[in-house]
Amino acid sequence: MIPGDSFMRGPLPPAAGMDDPAALRRAIRKGEFRGFTNLVARNHVQANLMILPAEHADAFEAYCRRNAAALPLLARSRPGEVGMPQLAADLDLRRDVGGYMVFREGKLVATPADIRELWREDFVAFAIGCSFSFERVLQVEGVRLRHLDEGNVSAMYVTDIETVPAGRFGGPLVVSMRALTAADAIRATIVSARHPQFHGAPIHLGMPQAIGIDDLARPYGGHGLTSLRADELPVFWPCGATAQLAALRAALPLCITHYKAHMLVTDLPIADVVGAPAGWGPGHAQEPPSSSFIHTSAHNTDTPAAAPATAPRPGGQQE
Amino acid sequence: MIPGDSFMRGPLPPAAGMDDPAALRRAIRKGEFRGFTNLVARNHVQANLMILPAEHADAFEAYCRRNAAALPLLARSRPGEVGMPQLAADLDLRRDVGGYMVFREGKLVATPADIRELWREDFVAFAIGCSFSFERVLQVEGVRLRHLDEGNVSAMYVTDIETVPAGRFGGPLVVSMRALTAADAIRATIVSARHPQFHGAPIHLGMPQAIGIDDLARPYGGHGLTSLRADELPVFWPCGATAQLAALRAALPLCITHYKAHMLVTDLPIADVVGAPAGWGPGHAQEPPSSSFIHTSAHNTDTPAAAPATAPRPGGQQE
Repeated sequence: MIPGDSFMRGPLPPAAGMDDPAALRRAIRKGEFRGFTNLVARNHVQANLMILPAEHADAFEAYCRRNAAALPLLARSRPGEVGMPQLAADLDLRRDVGGYMVFREGKLVATPADIRELWREDFVAFAIGCSFSFERVLQVEGVRLRHLDEGNVSAMYVTDIETVPAGRFGGPLVVSMRALTAADAIRATIVSARHPQFHGAPIHLGMPQAIGIDDLARPYGGHGLTSLRADELPVFWPCGATAQLAALRAALPLCITHYKAHMLVTDLPIADVVGAPAGWGPGHAQEPPSSSFIHTSAHNTDTPAAAPATAPRPGGQQE
Repeated sequence: MIPGDSFMRGPLPPAAGMDDPAALRRAIRKGEFRGFTNLVARNHVQANLMILPAEHADAFEAYCRRNAAALPLLARSRPGEVGMPQLAADLDLRRDVGGYMVFREGKLVATPADIRELWREDFVAFAIGCSFSFERVLQVEGVRLRHLDEGNVSAMYVTDIETVPAGRFGGPLVVSMRALTAADAIRATIVSARHPQFHGAPIHLGMPQAIGIDDLARPYGGHGLTSLRADELPVFWPCGATAQLAALRAALPLCITHYKAHMLVTDLPIADVVGAPAGWGPGHAQEPPSSSFIHTSAHNTDTPAAAPATAPRPGGQQE
């Protein structure tokens, strides 16, 4: 069997009503939900959040546009505006995200669940595309994401790939890593390349040290699935956390981001954003050519005239 | 610099007039050209050739259709027909290929340069898409193919992936391998997936043993680039040689194929077949997201608050 094809395709069972984005935001606002958002509101776009003083907003926007694979801009608010009506009608940016990180002069000073007391009339907010959205697309297309099966998130790493700077913003690219079988790495590459609004194609696979990652066990932020099975490759995508690191390095007097893996949940259906036809879901997936083959056993040979053995392996088909 | 981006894009210098497919076939017919065809007639479709008695033709066609990634059918001749007018106006299948392999009862019995004396009125010929065509597409899209730079061909391997049988035809999938940097593996995956008529997406990358290849140094047929550099991954595509191996295993009384890497050269422009817009060539390439980044040095960090060092590496940018 082709690796990955054993994965159940299609929508996962709903998680206790948490797939309704408006209901989820209400639960977050009431303090009833404080978890990672990668397994809830799975059919709606989620976003990285960056809030900073208006005087830095234009440079930050330029930074996003120059590094659009890592930082695909979804929306920018007007100064002081606490909503983003293009993303969700009733959104309150100050209390509808599961957690916030407050940075002053490049130092993390607080991780509140509500930033109403910190809010200023010159704050501008940016929503930036997030890999949680393309993870949903990958799952629907049949890619097994083991970190999700294990209730985890993807690990992030700082690379030695330099972003294109803008004003005070610059620094290394941050990537997210997913442990995938080779067949799923191929499938995920083809699928993700179609969706630049969610980071697009991988930037690397297979050799972490080639992009400056010396130890997969030491992820940026300290969380996420970092161990590889023998049949898995590490596949790396540009990550929205690049913006957070750039803001830290810029040592702004004040900026506020979402807390790690606690994303801004929007009302935008992923299917609308990816331009999927009606009925997006099982069956929409484009099969890679491997799908017409089945695995049995054979041995490599040296010459065209030597026919390989074809006895099945003990225990049946290879996984 | 992103690996692969240093590669010169666009048409290679013409090789002594050998990029005209009709002229090349005339040179082959006269015995003036007997080399591998992967570096000549590079802008025109090349094909695997299979000639067999008519009684086996329908089963063979079914086998191709059931394993279309490895065996994308381009044309089938009528019994006894020595041309394939849909591929080339003046083609003589009996002497316009640089070499032939004659198999009887599954044994290679001759490798003539001309099969007119063997020709029978019940022979049916099949032209099957060949990776030489997608290699040209990959090059135009900026993928560096080191085996071509070194004047070599890609290596082939017999896998433990079983094809879908049809009649007497069946057996393991044969793959071709290209040694690619990670960035080029990603790019090549995205590009090749668009071209199912030339085998489509890779079937595997990174772990040869996972598809039954125990030793890269022992390729099927004994030729091709088999060594990997430290920054290269082996990337595997379904290969038309699958048909040759299936015909051997079927032990047909008689069948004739092209000699390895001496393909049937057609008059079909690759650009027409891939549906490329006018001006196919440099600039047509879709950039992967990596293109906006430049490499410098940084170190991975454990916490969001720790800014990585950014001093350039000695010697400048990483390749």
